[in-house]
Order: sequence, then structure tokens, then C-alpha cells
Amino acid sequence: MTLAELTARIIAFRDARDWMQFHNPKELAVAITAEAGELLQHFVWQQPEQIERRASERRAELTDEMADVAILLLELAHNLEVEVGQAVLDKLERNERRYPVEKSRGSNAKYNEL
Amino acid sequence: MTLAELTARIIAFRDARDWMQFHNPKELAVAITAEAGELLQHFVWQQPEQIERRASERRAELTDEMADVAILLLELAHNLEVEVGQAVLDKLERNERRYPVEKSRGSNAKYNEL
Amino acid sequence: MTLAELTARIIAFRDARDWMQFHNPKELAVAITAEAGELLQHFVWQQPEQIERRASERRAELTDEMADVAILLLELAHNLEVEVGQAVLDKLERNERRYPVEKSRGSNAKYNEL
Amino acid sequence: MTLAELTARIIAFRDARDWMQFHNPKELAVAITAEAGELLQHFVWQQPEQIERRASERRAELTDEMADVAILLLELAHNLEVEVGQAVLDKLERNERRYPVEKSRGSNAKYNEL
Repeated sequence: MTLAELTARIIAFRDARDWMQFHNPKELAVAITAEAGELLQHFVWQQPEQIERRASERRAELTDEMADVAILLLELAHNLEVEVGQAVLDKLERNERRYPVEKSRGSNAKYNEL
Repeated sequence: MTLAELTARIIAFRDARDWMQFHNPKELAVAITAEAGELLQHFVWQQPEQIERRASERRAELTDEMADVAILLLELAHNLEVEVGQAVLDKLERNERRYPVEKSRGSNAKYNEL
Repeated sequence: MTLAELTARIIAFRDARDWMQFHNPKELAVAITAEAGELLQHFVWQQPEQIERRASERRAELTDEMADVAILLLELAHNLEVEVGQAVLDKLERNERRYPVEKSRGSNAKYNEL
Repeated sequence: MTLAELTARIIAFRDARDWMQFHNPKELAVAITAEAGELLQHFVWQQPEQIERRASERRAELTDEMADVAILLLELAHNLEVEVGQAVLDKLERNERRYPVEKSRGSNAKYNEL
């Protein structure tokens, strides 16, 4: 499945319902943040040793929230004429420079603190 | 570019740095939410008539935030053994039932309020 | 009701349950963000002309989410030994300088764009 | 310092700038969520044993983000005619019932899982 194929399905769904009128970039950013918050909700107060079990028990709900974020993100990228696959590759390339393996291996420090 | 290819690149980047130790599902959900918040930040207080211009002026930054969300989301899906493309298709199918075209066209009501 | 009195009630509630062990600053920031996301959820896709009615219909739920954010914020401030009332006054004073009335009146521009 | 006094200062600041026109409940919820995201940002990828040090090093920035959330929350409560101190007390009372001390002491389980 390519990103272009998924995006085409998402846009067809939206346009069949005439929803573009509600989906300016701010509204999509609001919806993405709200869905990310739902994803996070599953882990509130969970201690490190509880996380994997929680993720496993809530796998269906988490999959659902991840799908919501992905759908909204692909629509936003489409509307802004951003090729999100290329954006990911560009960001990885930038991060290769920001986080050289020898300096960042095994460290969770941000690039400006390495 | 397929999702599997992008995911492979993301996981190679992570593993070269031995970062899996920091990336349990909760930490990834925290990072996704924080990045979604950065996306939203660009639109705070912006009025409807300002949104498209703001999105256009901030296109590079927005692309960067979208890439961050996408990278984290693909890693989370990989770690949970979720095929995110399939999850998107499943969710669209569910939404087809929740939002029948004849009832939802031109309406921004939630499915339980249609 | 003073902030000190409210905070004392919140801390008594927490300590009676021995919950400080779960409430480090990161966990509180996670919980605050998740609760803010619940607040936001009530307005997703709502158009400008629908907002006031939505807020009125959901007043009880919004009050509940606001209380959750306030409780977590007061606990975080307490734990970090921050006097949140003073922090608010300090921030208002800083904003007085950042947003002089003559330049910012009727404008939603950020201080660095005025 | 009472909540009523803080709120009066916040509203005077806003009205001197004629900003009520930008501050409907949705916009305030968006801004609260974005500020909560900034608070969270300070802790992304931080491991449990790093949290207290991070909080201590970033105390000034965290205080600033907490003030932003508090200002927006007090304004939202004012606009919705919600007495946030009372809302906190009401929520604590509800939580007393949801989380009886004998069942919830030392547990991070949600009330519906106790």
C-alpha cells in the first residue's frame, strides 16, 4: 500500500461528504492534536513496568487512534501539497546530521545538547 | 514510496543509535502529542480568514512537524506490530458505516449526533 | 478561596492515597496535556458560529475538564515550589511589555510579529 | 492572592487590548492545549531518573508555561461563568467517592478499574 493510494482513499471519503469546507489546516491540526491526546490518554499514570502490558491490552484502541492520526495527517499533507513520504526521508537525512551515530548512540540527549 | 519502506528506514535510523531503550509505547505517545502540539502552535489565535496564508507562509515548518509526527507514528505502529495502512483502510470502512453519505454530506456533526 | 487553600486540599487528597510516587513532573505534564486534549475534543470540527452554543451545551463537561487541568497544575506548581499566583502576575507583567496596548489593541499578532 | 483577583487582572489585560474578539471557548481550548504541549516538550524522552533534575534545570521555563496555562484557564472559566475554585472542590469531592482511600491507596488504577 503506498501513501498515494491511502491518500486517494481518504480524499475520496472526504469529498463524497463535502467536508473540505470544515478541513482548513488549523482545523486539521486541532483534530490531530485531539487524537494524539486520545492516544496519550491510554498511558496516563502508567509506570514504566506497566507500559508494554497496557499497550498489549489496548492494542485495538491504540490502532484506532493511530489510524485517526494517520488519516488526518495524510489529508493535511495532501491539502498543503506536501509529499509526506519525501518529508519523512528529508527529516531522517537532517536527523542523520544532527544525531551522528558516534555521538548519539545510547543517548537520549537532544541534538543541541549532545 | 511504501509505508514498509519508510518504516524500514526509520527503524534502521533508530537501531543504529540504540534508541529502542527510550521508545516504549508511552514515550512514543508522549512524543507524538508534543509534536502535534508544535503543529497546532502555528495556528494559535489565527482567525479563519488568516489560516490559508499562515499555512502557506509556514509550509516548511509545517512539513517538518508533519514529518516528525509521521516518523513517530510509523515507529509506534512497527513496535506494536500494527500495519498502519491496513488500520487506515479499516477505519475508513468503519467511518463509511458511521457516516453514510446521505446523512453526513455537508454536516460536521459527529456520527452519534447525526 | 485562595490558591493556597485549594492546593492544600489537593495535596491532602493525593497524600491520603500515597500517590506522590506516581506524580513526578513528567507524569503531571503528561496528565495535564491529556486533560487539555479532552477539553479540546469538545470543539473539534466546530465552526465559529457553533462555538458558543457548543460551550453552553457542554458546560458541565467543560467545567469538569477545567477542574482536572487546574488540579494537576496546582499540584505540579506545589511540587516544583512555584507560587502559581505570582507566576501569573509575573507573566502578565512581561506580557504588558511584550504587548503594549497601542501596538497590540485589536491585533492577534504575536509579540515578535507586532 | 485569590482566584477572583487573578482573574480580574487577566480580564483587564485582555480588555485593554480588545482581544475578547479572538478568545471564544474553542480558541482558548486550542491555546491551552498548545501551551500544555510546550510544558510536555521539556520532558520528551526523559527517563524516570532524569525527571527531577530536568524539572529543576528548567524551573523558570516550566513556571512560564504553567503561568500561560493558568492565565488561559482562568479566562476560559471567567468567560463560561464557571467558578474554577468551586469546580476544583466539586471534582475533589467526586474523586473522594471514585477513589476511596482504602481501595486506591498506593494504586495508580483508574476508578473504573479499581
